[in-house]
Amino acid sequence: MKNVKVKCPGTVANLVCGFDILGLALHEPSDIMQLRLLNEPRVIITNKDNFNLPTEPERNVAGVVLLSVMERMDNKIGFEAEIEKHIKPGSGIGSSAASAAGAAVAANHLLGNIFSNDEVVQFAMNGEKLASGVKHADNIAPCILGGVTLIRSIHPLDIVAIPSPDLYVTVVHPQIEVRTADARQILRKQVLLKDAIKQWGNIAGLVAGFIKNDHDLIGRSLEDVIIEPVRSILIPGFDEVKRKCKEAGALGGGISGSGPSIFMLSKNEATAKATEQVMKEVYERIGIEYYTYVTTINKKGVEVMDVE
Amino acid sequence: MKNVKVKCPGTVANLVCGFDILGLALHEPSDIMQLRLLNEPRVIITNKDNFNLPTEPERNVAGVVLLSVMERMDNKIGFEAEIEKHIKPGSGIGSSAASAAGAAVAANHLLGNIFSNDEVVQFAMNGEKLASGVKHADNIAPCILGGVTLIRSIHPLDIVAIPSPDLYVTVVHPQIEVRTADARQILRKQVLLKDAIKQWGNIAGLVAGFIKNDHDLIGRSLEDVIIEPVRSILIPGFDEVKRKCKEAGALGGGISGSGPSIFMLSKNEATAKATEQVMKEVYERIGIEYYTYVTTINKKGVEVMDVE
Repeated sequence: MKNVKVKCPGTVANLVCGFDILGLALHEPSDIMQLRLLNEPRVIITNKDNFNLPTEPERNVAGVVLLSVMERMDNKIGFEAEIEKHIKPGSGIGSSAASAAGAAVAANHLLGNIFSNDEVVQFAMNGEKLASGVKHADNIAPCILGGVTLIRSIHPLDIVAIPSPDLYVTVVHPQIEVRTADARQILRKQVLLKDAIKQWGNIAGLVAGFIKNDHDLIGRSLEDVIIEPVRSILIPGFDEVKRKCKEAGALGGGISGSGPSIFMLSKNEATAKATEQVMKEVYERIGIEYYTYVTTINKKGVEVMDVE
Repeated sequence: MKNVKVKCPGTVANLVCGFDILGLALHEPSDIMQLRLLNEPRVIITNKDNFNLPTEPERNVAGVVLLSVMERMDNKIGFEAEIEKHIKPGSGIGSSAASAAGAAVAANHLLGNIFSNDEVVQFAMNGEKLASGVKHADNIAPCILGGVTLIRSIHPLDIVAIPSPDLYVTVVHPQIEVRTADARQILRKQVLLKDAIKQWGNIAGLVAGFIKNDHDLIGRSLEDVIIEPVRSILIPGFDEVKRKCKEAGALGGGISGSGPSIFMLSKNEATAKATEQVMKEVYERIGIEYYTYVTTINKKGVEVMDVE
């Protein structure tokens, strides 16, 4: 096998109260990546989109992942990647994770799946480190494994699949820039113990709600008293979107990753579409360009589409 | 119906990483309480044990609970309680919660179960307030409902039953005094965000482990980076007990409530007994008197035994 084509889904990290530990995969948007195995130790990147991302492997998210796989194979092989991104960089719905996870899964596939899921996640985290300066896995893990995932611990890596109901996800991406590094910078290094207790009550409730298929509990638990109050200031219209989407029937939601995208979970498609309508109205009125997506939780993760 | 006898179980609050939000009920030790309905608005308390607890209703944990029920019934009734405690006050295994929860459940039973579970918990929390100064429910909720319970929120009250495997629980109560108020006093008011993230990763893992019946995940998640490092200093032998119990095969454990009792969860009885042996050896060597219990998770909670 020399060629593989993979579909790399967008992801929502944090899930409101689960900062740095929870994430879920979406059906849309998603990137397409074609990867070819080379007999020589080099990595070639070609972009088939208009995002003007760097093509030098050391500066490209997929590139650094492929270099790390190449090094692990004693530099006896190389890769050529063609990347067609649809997940806009800086959207907060896991654009870099899709490139990193896609490259890691595709490379492993070409090598006969010799690496475990944990190893594939480790390779992919090199891409996240390049993108955001931090080796985090809350987009990578759901992107690779699909569904809702818990990163219980990074050192040692401990990823737990969280069974979940088939929820609808509505996402709005207001076209403003929030740099992940900035979004991290404004967080306080210390939090009040009483706030931390509220937060972990909600996390426990959210995880229980997902596994027990309890929509109301999911809704009640989608509350963030620590990160959202600080970060939401960077997103115009956030409070209004959130309030009106819940009035429209959404279970709840909040900032996707470090923003600026906002996501909402709904029980059914009608509510998810009503939620989308609310998001559109708010950003039309404010006068900020936006994209919206109405999609569902993707339980597969990175999908191998064609091989030769 | 004029008389009821209830069995009120001991409870383990906090469950290591779930400070203030998680708790579980034990089969042993447990208290026995007999409650009689009176036609006049007074509360009479008789102790059938040697703990010398106050019998003035305003100063007795069960008493204040019964007074709050009486008031809610427009002071048209009263109660006479005979309490036979086996759960030593100050042990950290929910002695005050057993009195408070037992009184609330028994009173509700005598009144024809007119109050909801949430209302019964609210009544019982008056007892916890007297005992520790704080209206907390992490012993009350499992004592009343049985099993493992999550208190997602106190205001508004939101209690979630967490299904769990049939685990064994070993408890050692070293006979030293740790006042709940002191144990609360020494906690820092602020915690590092990075420690809070570790903690909520573990809480999410613990809840997922219970519901998914994943013993290894439960074991990996029983880690507390915030409360235990501070409170365990008050308990001689704590680190040694914990390390050796895990070496003996226990899944993990830690301080029960605010201590001084230490609990350990095990998959089976043999391991639970080996764990007990370790606890005995440590406290024999240190020279501190102790009690031990080998029991299981009590899925029923306060049990109504006899009625007339």
